[in-house]
Amino acid sequence: MKAHRLADIVAALGGELHGDGELAISRIASLDQADGRSISFLAHSRHAPKLARSAAGCVIAAVASLPAVRARGAAAVVTDDPYLYYARLTQWWRRQEGGAAAGIHPSAVIDAGAQVDPLATVGALAVVGAGARIGPHAVIGAHCGVGAQARIGAHTCLAERVTFGARCTIGERGIVHAGAVIGADGFGFAPAQGRWEKIEQLGAVRIGDDVEIGANTCIDRGALDDTVIEDGVKLDNLIQVAHNVRIGAHTAIAALAGIAGSTRIGRHCTIGGAAGVVGHIEIVDHVHIDAGTIVSRSIRQAGRYSGVFPFDDNASWEKNAATLRQLHALRERLRALEKKP
Amino acid sequence: MKAHRLADIVAALGGELHGDGELAISRIASLDQADGRSISFLAHSRHAPKLARSAAGCVIAAVASLPAVRARGAAAVVTDDPYLYYARLTQWWRRQEGGAAAGIHPSAVIDAGAQVDPLATVGALAVVGAGARIGPHAVIGAHCGVGAQARIGAHTCLAERVTFGARCTIGERGIVHAGAVIGADGFGFAPAQGRWEKIEQLGAVRIGDDVEIGANTCIDRGALDDTVIEDGVKLDNLIQVAHNVRIGAHTAIAALAGIAGSTRIGRHCTIGGAAGVVGHIEIVDHVHIDAGTIVSRSIRQAGRYSGVFPFDDNASWEKNAATLRQLHALRERLRALEKKP
Amino acid sequence: MKAHRLADIVAALGGELHGDGELAISRIASLDQADGRSISFLAHSRHAPKLARSAAGCVIAAVASLPAVRARGAAAVVTDDPYLYYARLTQWWRRQEGGAAAGIHPSAVIDAGAQVDPLATVGALAVVGAGARIGPHAVIGAHCGVGAQARIGAHTCLAERVTFGARCTIGERGIVHAGAVIGADGFGFAPAQGRWEKIEQLGAVRIGDDVEIGANTCIDRGALDDTVIEDGVKLDNLIQVAHNVRIGAHTAIAALAGIAGSTRIGRHCTIGGAAGVVGHIEIVDHVHIDAGTIVSRSIRQAGRYSGVFPFDDNASWEKNAATLRQLHALRERLRALEKKP
Repeated sequence: MKAHRLADIVAALGGELHGDGELAISRIASLDQADGRSISFLAHSRHAPKLARSAAGCVIAAVASLPAVRARGAAAVVTDDPYLYYARLTQWWRRQEGGAAAGIHPSAVIDAGAQVDPLATVGALAVVGAGARIGPHAVIGAHCGVGAQARIGAHTCLAERVTFGARCTIGERGIVHAGAVIGADGFGFAPAQGRWEKIEQLGAVRIGDDVEIGANTCIDRGALDDTVIEDGVKLDNLIQVAHNVRIGAHTAIAALAGIAGSTRIGRHCTIGGAAGVVGHIEIVDHVHIDAGTIVSRSIRQAGRYSGVFPFDDNASWEKNAATLRQLHALRERLRALEKKP
Repeated sequence: MKAHRLADIVAALGGELHGDGELAISRIASLDQADGRSISFLAHSRHAPKLARSAAGCVIAAVASLPAVRARGAAAVVTDDPYLYYARLTQWWRRQEGGAAAGIHPSAVIDAGAQVDPLATVGALAVVGAGARIGPHAVIGAHCGVGAQARIGAHTCLAERVTFGARCTIGERGIVHAGAVIGADGFGFAPAQGRWEKIEQLGAVRIGDDVEIGANTCIDRGALDDTVIEDGVKLDNLIQVAHNVRIGAHTAIAALAGIAGSTRIGRHCTIGGAAGVVGHIEIVDHVHIDAGTIVSRSIRQAGRYSGVFPFDDNASWEKNAATLRQLHALRERLRALEKKP
Repeated sequence: MKAHRLADIVAALGGELHGDGELAISRIASLDQADGRSISFLAHSRHAPKLARSAAGCVIAAVASLPAVRARGAAAVVTDDPYLYYARLTQWWRRQEGGAAAGIHPSAVIDAGAQVDPLATVGALAVVGAGARIGPHAVIGAHCGVGAQARIGAHTCLAERVTFGARCTIGERGIVHAGAVIGADGFGFAPAQGRWEKIEQLGAVRIGDDVEIGANTCIDRGALDDTVIEDGVKLDNLIQVAHNVRIGAHTAIAALAGIAGSTRIGRHCTIGGAAGVVGHIEIVDHVHIDAGTIVSRSIRQAGRYSGVFPFDDNASWEKNAATLRQLHALRERLRALEKKP
């Protein structure tokens, strides 16, 4: 990677520079991995021992840590929230790399009725359907499919090989990673004499601004109304969002989680990896679900919720799990003992 | 969407019409969302309060609810099973939209030895291998890959970007959603001095009629014999079906579930989301597994089975989970108390 | 499939032949499914009853089983490890089928700056980015995308529709199945006044030799440093490997498992299906995690670990699960009883 002057970084991102602004920074690195041409960050004072051992040329730090940084001979960028500064630095760093030039790759298959903004980019072998609209500075990666009447907002990027279904929409500044499927049919059937009769899924998926969707994640279209992902939601990889779910703004969900049909998740929630939420329930704002937890009924109160079997060495688990099958009977026996005079 | 005359709907789907057949129906809607040009349905009498508040122009209902529907001033379609009628109505509605014209998109790459029925449709940038056969009215969506010697039955639709492996087969009227992978190698290795020696997977996947397979779901090819999905099976998104599994007819499996190798699932079963079934076991017909349950041994009796840790607020869970690790010891203590004179 | 002389198999793979080397073998089959032209194997003496019923023309067996095989009138190939012999036989069998001829399909889109070895194969509609290097005998399947500066080692095969991200690398003799996404962004955000600020993921994914990666599995690129998969690792389908994870050599992980960010898994471990490992922990070598287990803290000792709620019929589960919520209180009551004089 090419190097950047430390002074240029501070000019772009702010913060108070202590040390040599001419320092050439060739990479961003953790305190452990940093060398004299690296910029690193001290996100929390508990990492101070790492600072003591770090060879970083510059450290982003809170003012309280400034003396310790300078004592190491490193430059410092002082800021209130070093971790947030680090996040913005990664964004700035990425922007310096530049992006693909706008335009449509000659191998892409664009329906004559599609509207692709002249400032948008469409990659190799992408397919854009009739009536689809691609906004300015949007990027449609190689092998992506954008369905008929779909809408991709300005500055939104479909990484590669994303399926974005007919009539589905996404707002501005979104990112959808490879393999994600937006707008496959929801899983809806009516039982009919031992068989399943398909309920055609006539709704769509409506995604707000600043949403990020992970690789191979699926968001199904609604049965009649739309599945809705509000602004600022972040979904990790391999997540299932079933039909008619609504996910509130700025909620983040980790990989392999599943949200069953028609459930509403509040705003500013977090859901851990491999957690599951059953269908037709409601979770209020500011709820945090631990990894692996199955949420089987509505949650009406903000807070943290958990529900995994504590793992153990196999022999201990075997004994406790076997006993668990008799737990109710144990309670009855305890009750009987308590009643003894 | 364009509107349809209510009388045309009833002419196509049956049921007893009460009210104005000339009513123009512009959409199908839930009772909550319906307006005067919507057709809705009352699937169960417990939804009667929603009916009372609904503005639907027409309601599909059982005869017992007819007075209540008519009292609202709405037209009614009376039928024994309103939910099933609704399912068929969605299918009829979708058919009115028409489909893509048959034919092969010029950008598709079709092996000279493939047989594509003249009534089939092959989308943009699809790849069809040597000796593959695509039946009449089948649809191979954009970016799909159909492997050598694979067979796609009549009226079956591979939505988009489906990988359908060499020598695998699917019957008639099937639907495979985007990103599904049919016929990747099963996960088979022989241990050899601390390394894993690959067992080539020489079988295939054989799928019956009327099967639906969700987005990004994987069905692996068998090691020697085939993996088999019987008629009428419905698989949701992101499901793993391992090699040599057999899934009985009309079984439905929800998202993120996994079935390990060589297991046989019966007919008319349901398996909830994120449930798992270990390998080399057998589950009889009419078994219903709750979401999140791990099935660790064969099930010989029809019925409903469950096995998730009940979730709780984190503090309560912490206390109970910690105690759970001593459960066996608690039982011993209880036993000792019981033996006291 | 075409037939092979038994003597040719033994000439290629070794073992001691008992019986007619001229026997024409038309397929490899399990003992159950074998006929007189099949070669089968007896992996363990507990399968001896199957041998007694088998019609196999030839059986791969340990010396102790030789008399039983010959008593059935079947030929035998005697070897120390029949299962390993079977694995190698499947590989030999597959090799006899031959492979695609080397060369670049005319529909592939190859950047002028990419280096594709003349002995490599690039399939239909694949995309290879600037500066990518594809080694000799590597196979890039149809619809694959190989990002800029990525490196694919000799004899490695990306099956079909694999996304292999920019700057990521894989060694020799690897296999990556359809739909896998290598090098999507890790899930990293800094909280900023109720919103999530993206941390650009500047690392890559580095994969060793002899690694197999299942269909639709995701391995995210590191935030600053790389995500690392060591030699000989085998990953099944639909697995999530988060950013900056390191997986030790010869570890095997079953489908739907998830490894959260920055966790280190040792060498020679096995992780069962749908198991989860939280982030920022360490698991030593030779650890075996059962299916469905959530590992919530570091494991410092080799061994087998478990943690699923034992499933039961729904009614029993309901009672035990309800009692589980009071487990801590039960313990207190037991304690009180114990203190009674």
